[in-house]
Amino acid sequence: MKINGPRVISRLAELARIGALEGGGVERLAFSDGDLQGRNWVQNHLQTLGLEIRIDAVGNLFGIMPGREGIARPAIMFGSHTDTVGRAGRLDGALGVVAAIEVLEVIAASNWRPAHPLILASFVNEEGVRFMPDMMGSLFHAGDLPLASVLKARDANDICIADEMERLQYGGQDSLDDLGIDTFIELHIEQGPVLESLGRDVGIVTGVQGLSWFEVTVEGASNHAGTTPMDMRRDAGAMAGTLAAKLRELPALIEDLRLTIGSMHWHPNLVNVIPDRVVFTIDVRHPLPDALAMAEERIKAILGTGTGDLEVSWRSLARVNPCRFTPRVVEAVASAAKRNGLSGHRLISGAGHDAHILSRCYDAGMIFIPSRGGISHHPDEFSTDEHIRHGTQVLLDTVLTLAGYPDPTP
Amino acid sequence: MKINGPRVISRLAELARIGALEGGGVERLAFSDGDLQGRNWVQNHLQTLGLEIRIDAVGNLFGIMPGREGIARPAIMFGSHTDTVGRAGRLDGALGVVAAIEVLEVIAASNWRPAHPLILASFVNEEGVRFMPDMMGSLFHAGDLPLASVLKARDANDICIADEMERLQYGGQDSLDDLGIDTFIELHIEQGPVLESLGRDVGIVTGVQGLSWFEVTVEGASNHAGTTPMDMRRDAGAMAGTLAAKLRELPALIEDLRLTIGSMHWHPNLVNVIPDRVVFTIDVRHPLPDALAMAEERIKAILGTGTGDLEVSWRSLARVNPCRFTPRVVEAVASAAKRNGLSGHRLISGAGHDAHILSRCYDAGMIFIPSRGGISHHPDEFSTDEHIRHGTQVLLDTVLTLAGYPDPTP
Repeated sequence: MKINGPRVISRLAELARIGALEGGGVERLAFSDGDLQGRNWVQNHLQTLGLEIRIDAVGNLFGIMPGREGIARPAIMFGSHTDTVGRAGRLDGALGVVAAIEVLEVIAASNWRPAHPLILASFVNEEGVRFMPDMMGSLFHAGDLPLASVLKARDANDICIADEMERLQYGGQDSLDDLGIDTFIELHIEQGPVLESLGRDVGIVTGVQGLSWFEVTVEGASNHAGTTPMDMRRDAGAMAGTLAAKLRELPALIEDLRLTIGSMHWHPNLVNVIPDRVVFTIDVRHPLPDALAMAEERIKAILGTGTGDLEVSWRSLARVNPCRFTPRVVEAVASAAKRNGLSGHRLISGAGHDAHILSRCYDAGMIFIPSRGGISHHPDEFSTDEHIRHGTQVLLDTVLTLAGYPDPTP
Repeated sequence: MKINGPRVISRLAELARIGALEGGGVERLAFSDGDLQGRNWVQNHLQTLGLEIRIDAVGNLFGIMPGREGIARPAIMFGSHTDTVGRAGRLDGALGVVAAIEVLEVIAASNWRPAHPLILASFVNEEGVRFMPDMMGSLFHAGDLPLASVLKARDANDICIADEMERLQYGGQDSLDDLGIDTFIELHIEQGPVLESLGRDVGIVTGVQGLSWFEVTVEGASNHAGTTPMDMRRDAGAMAGTLAAKLRELPALIEDLRLTIGSMHWHPNLVNVIPDRVVFTIDVRHPLPDALAMAEERIKAILGTGTGDLEVSWRSLARVNPCRFTPRVVEAVASAAKRNGLSGHRLISGAGHDAHILSRCYDAGMIFIPSRGGISHHPDEFSTDEHIRHGTQVLLDTVLTLAGYPDPTP
């Protein structure tokens, strides 16, 4: 079976018009009017295909193609999300959902019917920009986030999700418990530069990095930059700089470690005043749980060296363990790429995804396509039409493989 | 002659009630109602002493005790300022003016009359908080700032000085050209920790550090902290940190150099995004012109090392050459301290003062008293009553020495 490339490209353009911004970019923040319009657009396509529609209590959307009658096989789910960050690109999330529609449309148009039910999933609020946490819909689906917590989440304007859901008639009451889902596959743009720099067509994603965020506070004393001798200073900026430099050496010591000091706030932040307080963050990621834990210990040891006349304290802002995707799914992706004559590259996802959350309850895997310049969360986010077609074909072939194709229709 | 200690202390308390803030501290921003009330308070004391009052076009206040008739000697000027920073202490500036009133009052009450005219000066807008530049009044007096520039200066609310002066009836029309001033002496709190840490009573100020301010911009590329491999980053934060660390080594290489990185702004300043732009400032000070120039060259050389995939640019925000005070005045201060049995310490002023500006046209000098903890520009600014009395007595004796006392009154 072959996907219809132009149809996929034109549907991505169509979806990108929902929430399109003047001057470029797309914005469909979760639980906004644009977000609902995006979900309705997907739902219309599912209805056209004659699929059963279900919407759960937080607004996750599912389109179900039942398995062949009389054979009880676990369901295979695939999809992504259609919400976006502010001033986003058009592919993050949208690609995985549009490709999933294509997969179902191609199979529906064929004579073949899988034994396994097939489910398109479009999870709500993957981005977590307006309402925290991110990956809210998949967390709820995985049973890791209670409905009450979702409903009472509030945005910066103190509007809660429960009110937005009522206003938009956003939520449903459907359950998927009867379907016996055991697999989830997500096609996504890489959002990083690796595939492009290696010149590979498809990323065979073997897992998702774990992540640990620290917030570090250094406290010294604020004094006059002119009158305070160098040896009588308690300069929080200098100490923060020393700690940051030591922290930045860690990736050279722990293979595959990524460490970012992304935010730094100085106080009082005046040219002629010695800083009395600096607050900075550490974002550290590793694919292996033990190595991530080791990095965290090293970080704490380095922060412990910041003593003397200054106080250094830290707290954890977030922590997610790494996941490894299921070999059965990963190998199905690899063979689908190979069968299509595409060059694959096995890699770990640097960013979090719904598939990471769902790997807790299902056999999971992901397919990446190259992102030009590694750019994402920005109107300049871009992948070539060819890569989009290739990725969609690999998703179709992966689903077909996992569903037992070419097991003949009875 | 002896100063009246309790009178000085009680007048400082009285002046501190003008612009007193709830919860502590004083605020008399230049060209505000509080500032005018402070100046009026000084003017009333000068009138009570029967002195001639002059107010110049920018609002600088002078009280003149004429020299003995028939003898033309250069005038000796002394004083400071009564404007403050926001939420200030009660001594910065105020001490020098209240002490100058005391000097004139003691001399007026004596039988002795100097051959030299004596002039109390209270300069407007020394702090430069609301309207730039700082030391505005002394700059105007020294001929280094045209009246038109003063009048058109605007505050953050876009109010210009000309309008505030009209509203407050702040300016005058008086000139001091007839007085042949050749000397300026300023008593001030140290605003630094040196005298206190050495346990000395009086600072014999031999000059003021020169200062050079840089603003440095590092530009890299903003990317995802999770998906971007370490070797494919253009991390402006990491580069700014490396440059800052190299810059902080300079004070160990150039004796008496003070270097402060007081402000640092990160962009976009998010935990999971590699910074694409960091802007930071360098405040570098040295007492010697050649060493300051050498430090500036070293700074530029270090900033030049920040290349590769990142762009580093810088601009000068401010530059003031160091000054050395006149030996005749410095030695008069030293001998006045010694005569009173006080322990003196020769030091360079770390902060800028009106005396620094006036050293361009007059023989100038300064007297410091210890600041507890080196704290200034803060309600906790504090010097002991004893140090205040000592400083005032040293100012009186310095003026008397320079005026030829005990040259007998004819």
